[in-house]
Amino acid sequence: MHILIIGGAGMVGAKLAQRLVRDGQLGGRAISALTLQDVVVPGYPSGAGFPVVTLQGDLSVTGEAERLMASRPDVIFHLAAIVSGEAEADFDKGYRINLDGTRYLFDAIRAVGDGYRPRVVFTSSIAVFGAPFPDAIPDDFFTTPLTSYGTQKAIGELLLSDYSRRGIFDGIAIRLPTICVRPGKPNKAASGFFSNIIREPLAGLEAVLPVSEAVRHWHASPRSAVGFLVHAATIDLAIVGPRRAVTMPGLSVTVGEQIEALRKIAGERVVSRIRREPDETITRIVSGWSENFDASRARSLGFTSEATFEEIIRVHIDDELGGHFVA
Amino acid sequence: MHILIIGGAGMVGAKLAQRLVRDGQLGGRAISALTLQDVVVPGYPSGAGFPVVTLQGDLSVTGEAERLMASRPDVIFHLAAIVSGEAEADFDKGYRINLDGTRYLFDAIRAVGDGYRPRVVFTSSIAVFGAPFPDAIPDDFFTTPLTSYGTQKAIGELLLSDYSRRGIFDGIAIRLPTICVRPGKPNKAASGFFSNIIREPLAGLEAVLPVSEAVRHWHASPRSAVGFLVHAATIDLAIVGPRRAVTMPGLSVTVGEQIEALRKIAGERVVSRIRREPDETITRIVSGWSENFDASRARSLGFTSEATFEEIIRVHIDDELGGHFVA
Repeated sequence: MHILIIGGAGMVGAKLAQRLVRDGQLGGRAISALTLQDVVVPGYPSGAGFPVVTLQGDLSVTGEAERLMASRPDVIFHLAAIVSGEAEADFDKGYRINLDGTRYLFDAIRAVGDGYRPRVVFTSSIAVFGAPFPDAIPDDFFTTPLTSYGTQKAIGELLLSDYSRRGIFDGIAIRLPTICVRPGKPNKAASGFFSNIIREPLAGLEAVLPVSEAVRHWHASPRSAVGFLVHAATIDLAIVGPRRAVTMPGLSVTVGEQIEALRKIAGERVVSRIRREPDETITRIVSGWSENFDASRARSLGFTSEATFEEIIRVHIDDELGGHFVA
Repeated sequence: MHILIIGGAGMVGAKLAQRLVRDGQLGGRAISALTLQDVVVPGYPSGAGFPVVTLQGDLSVTGEAERLMASRPDVIFHLAAIVSGEAEADFDKGYRINLDGTRYLFDAIRAVGDGYRPRVVFTSSIAVFGAPFPDAIPDDFFTTPLTSYGTQKAIGELLLSDYSRRGIFDGIAIRLPTICVRPGKPNKAASGFFSNIIREPLAGLEAVLPVSEAVRHWHASPRSAVGFLVHAATIDLAIVGPRRAVTMPGLSVTVGEQIEALRKIAGERVVSRIRREPDETITRIVSGWSENFDASRARSLGFTSEATFEEIIRVHIDDELGGHFVA
């Protein structure tokens, strides 16, 4: 089977590629080819037992989606997106990539015809929801996003459900939790601190905590995110029915609980590398975010994630630090 | 103030134009000009105390939305749409008119700039919801449409909310009930019988009832629909908040209750003109439709509609039959 990852240069896309290379199969079917596409040339995963092609291109440019469909991939992971902050800052770019790009892809699939009907896994976001929220947001909570990014993701979900209903492809939209611990350097995303306060201290570096320890958020590890994608690509979607957008499972914890888990695993010396530096702007932004979800539908469909924040930290130490941290 | 009605040749658009001509004002401000646009030349409302312009054009064609914005209308009623059955039968046409056309309009408003920020009233539909339903569908029920038309309307709602949030215009999406009694000839719409069984007997003609009397549906009169539009154009949208899609009030009655109301108003002889002719296809289609809504949010915002089906019939007799029917 031929697999295409659009957004293959991103953190989740690259990890998904590594997983597919390692497994050599998806849902019991051998992988015969893997194509990675992104606006920058995706990294080449090593050790693949099948051909891997990396492509640079812009899904929002005429012809790109058609080019990607020429090889008729059996499974398409559509992970490409302009992230929330940028989609809010650049109205045109957000709509062009997140809405037009997605629609171009769906229409290019339709244009193939000839009985072509791939599986499409689309990464949506909990940003499709807008405050005020119930205590735990259920799958059937209405989508009233408060950002252009959330609007574009909600529209992607609607298109995916309609195109699936019409038999153009067999799609599922998975709403990812905040990915924690995100590897790499600290960045300027408002959500960056959730990962920074774990990753940096474990690397012997100082991290800044800009909010109170009472702040609660919804997390899953990068390994779980890849697990969601693989599971979404292989489950029987007839069971999912016409409501094709599913909130993925995650863990609702406070920043204080994150820190306590770090203390248990790595000790007081590591925790002492977290410096409190309250930031009013970040505190205000984060106060509008969702804190907790009822992901029972995803769990009943077989999606799984970490049950404790200690697990999330151990995944980071295992997958990113070779099992060691700076005590 | 200058008012634009896109879809001005339709039944609701024409009635809205007549109402505006009669009132001469909207929300206490004198109307200085009215523009009616549609794919066919809209009828010219008689007796206007201000200039009325009728335009033929296709909103989904490049340049049409910009042309309409050149006069910077203060209030825009966007009623134009490919209806449910046609949007389902013609995938491309439905998406082109209902999605692209709406987006072209919204982007043309944005392109005006220079502080231009009109009121936009967009007619959405209860088709944004998909079965299975609760007993009464609340405003915060999630939008999982089961038709392309419903998908396109749900996307229009999302775009309208985001563009409003960003201050590009001040928009509200109103989800209309089924309009009953719809004037004119019987048509082939699956919902046609709800009106046919009242309108035709009152005109001395036979009507066909293709479903059981137990079928329940959600109705408001054409006069109420016009009332919703006028109210939506004039209320303070700051009170509505960021959730800009509102299900309009209506009346949930069974076909049996419709017939009983007709009997009370017009007598047994009129009712006897309804001929039962069960149709499996229509019965199946209608069985997937919503039956009842909780429109308390709309009511709290001041939207009103008929409290009994007798009222709905009287509106028809008054507005369409000059107060008389064929006994």
